[in-house]
Amino acid sequence: MKKRYLLSPGPTPVPEEVLLEMAKPIMHHRTPQFSAIFSECYKGLQKLFKTGQPVLTLAASGTGAMEAAVVNLFNAGDTVLVVNGGKFGERWGKISQAYGLKVEWLNVEWGQAVAVDAVAAALKNNPSIAAVLTQGSETSTTVAHPIRELAQLTKGTDTLLVVDGITAVGVVDMPMDEWGIDVMVTGSQKALMLPPGLAFIALSERAWKRNAAAKLPRYYFDLKRERDNQAKDTTAYTPAVSLMIGLRKVFELMFAEGLDNVYKRHDTLARACRAGVAALGLKPLAPLSPANSATGFFTPDGIDGGKLEKGLRDNYGVTFAGGQDHLKGKIIRVAHLGYFDTFDMIVALGAIEMSLAKAGHNAPLGAGVAAAQKILNERY
Amino acid sequence: MKKRYLLSPGPTPVPEEVLLEMAKPIMHHRTPQFSAIFSECYKGLQKLFKTGQPVLTLAASGTGAMEAAVVNLFNAGDTVLVVNGGKFGERWGKISQAYGLKVEWLNVEWGQAVAVDAVAAALKNNPSIAAVLTQGSETSTTVAHPIRELAQLTKGTDTLLVVDGITAVGVVDMPMDEWGIDVMVTGSQKALMLPPGLAFIALSERAWKRNAAAKLPRYYFDLKRERDNQAKDTTAYTPAVSLMIGLRKVFELMFAEGLDNVYKRHDTLARACRAGVAALGLKPLAPLSPANSATGFFTPDGIDGGKLEKGLRDNYGVTFAGGQDHLKGKIIRVAHLGYFDTFDMIVALGAIEMSLAKAGHNAPLGAGVAAAQKILNERY
Repeated sequence: MKKRYLLSPGPTPVPEEVLLEMAKPIMHHRTPQFSAIFSECYKGLQKLFKTGQPVLTLAASGTGAMEAAVVNLFNAGDTVLVVNGGKFGERWGKISQAYGLKVEWLNVEWGQAVAVDAVAAALKNNPSIAAVLTQGSETSTTVAHPIRELAQLTKGTDTLLVVDGITAVGVVDMPMDEWGIDVMVTGSQKALMLPPGLAFIALSERAWKRNAAAKLPRYYFDLKRERDNQAKDTTAYTPAVSLMIGLRKVFELMFAEGLDNVYKRHDTLARACRAGVAALGLKPLAPLSPANSATGFFTPDGIDGGKLEKGLRDNYGVTFAGGQDHLKGKIIRVAHLGYFDTFDMIVALGAIEMSLAKAGHNAPLGAGVAAAQKILNERY
Repeated sequence: MKKRYLLSPGPTPVPEEVLLEMAKPIMHHRTPQFSAIFSECYKGLQKLFKTGQPVLTLAASGTGAMEAAVVNLFNAGDTVLVVNGGKFGERWGKISQAYGLKVEWLNVEWGQAVAVDAVAAALKNNPSIAAVLTQGSETSTTVAHPIRELAQLTKGTDTLLVVDGITAVGVVDMPMDEWGIDVMVTGSQKALMLPPGLAFIALSERAWKRNAAAKLPRYYFDLKRERDNQAKDTTAYTPAVSLMIGLRKVFELMFAEGLDNVYKRHDTLARACRAGVAALGLKPLAPLSPANSATGFFTPDGIDGGKLEKGLRDNYGVTFAGGQDHLKGKIIRVAHLGYFDTFDMIVALGAIEMSLAKAGHNAPLGAGVAAAQKILNERY
């Protein structure tokens, strides 16, 4: 017997009651019964995004909704400014290039947030930039980008702000309408505590205007068609029915807790995790602008991060995420978004301490746990 | 208490053991544990498609895989011949047009199969046609198209045969390599007995060659990238993990029954359903080339099909599908693909008889059931 713990930043754990809800008999999607569920999900999504615009649902993973943003807003030859500070920033650029956009790369060192001044300078330098494409939280580097400040820059200009909020929506408050975010994207398998397979996207009024003039080819990801269908409480193509049924249950849980409490919980867990990591003398990956979705740290010199991650997963039964590209084998990422609570952080830090001790790292057992406990006790 | 029965052609019922399998704790997709599951699914898909080529998995509904076929094979300006005998034939054309292809429509009366001669004539008339796009089974009209014969026409020419097998794969034997089908597509929510959210696609060797020269823009549906990832037992983007876990269980069930027995079961249920419908004096929608996936019939004169369908669903608890476009309110479609067995047909015909009797139709109760029973007893 080995109990398994999932502490990777997506898929994240799914609450048992949501798993069981999704295990109920499947239903047909073109029925009033399913439309009622869809309508509830739709209202929940608007509440979560804090927008009066429709939040559209796609049967796809998050990358599908990122592509939807690109193909529904632009024309070939348009220039976009891509905040490239990790794997997902890079993905914005690759999708844009695949569709013939000109990409102006704003490269950011992995582990750093984008500097608002650098974006301002780029926009000043080239006012024809059609949009800034960024992440709310760059999952690969556990960094939070300054979305509110970026929205201040693009508001009132002809440049749209397009935010991949895949590991930010439901983790931190990002009121789309109030801040002036033009496109916000998220996925099911992060703070929404569901299996992967659903993606969500909303467009501001001015983004919808841009959509009317956007000629890039699209069919499955045609958002105008989805909007027309959603107005009738349905989807253009067969929706991922069981995941939608799960989503309704997730919203029941999230709104019972209250969105502000959800954000506060994420903030406390994140601070606790960071304190624990610091107490173990581990170097944080994102020291200045850490995300509340996950905490990354460099493994100590002489300890192979890949082996540590593998040992934690296969020996201790605790799955974290490692690093990608040049960070491969060098970092561990601990998730705390979605269905995470106090004692998940105790498990995470306890397991890290134990496996580091086995590997010969000389931090005292319990030191990280103790540092986290002090913060976690704020919750009681 | 009202027991509910789902007899619509997708989503189809999901076996309880598959629902429970998918309700197990979620796992991370970049782990050897998940790769092992993925690898099993991958082998199962090849066995099902009867192909030596990789069968790729997309987190999308079936339409996503149809789009993937188009964007991975063609260039803007290419001409495709679209067999348009229903909603899904029409969809091939619309996707193609969205990407700038020239569509030669081969219109077929709804309820009829395409005439092989008509395809042959169209190809002879225009040898530059890049591909024939068709359905194996046109779900909206319950018609089976003659795929084997169409493959004979395209074999050895420069024209590809692209088959939407969404309600045909797993229902009837369509050995992709042996017949010379160039692209075959299916989805999770039909014969594969899963919730919607996964789509599958395989390309023949010559279709892969065409892919190398195809310049239509693509990213999320880039099949070359998926193939490269699948060779490493993973996917380019986050897969729909829970559905993949379900798929492994589905293959366990299907291969335990044996594919030939699966096809035979579908054939017997389909013949029984058609016999039952005939015994009730109902006019079949697809008299000459009925699909084994679903049976459509016209509701009797004076009986509104929409009302009948609604009453069956809301009053009797039995969900069928109605008609689309000009068949709206005029037909009922009874599914028998996937997790369907003898007594589902008894339920279907029993419910139809009862609701027709209530509506004043003068066929004797039990007549359809009896006709079906005679055929269904072949199974024992």
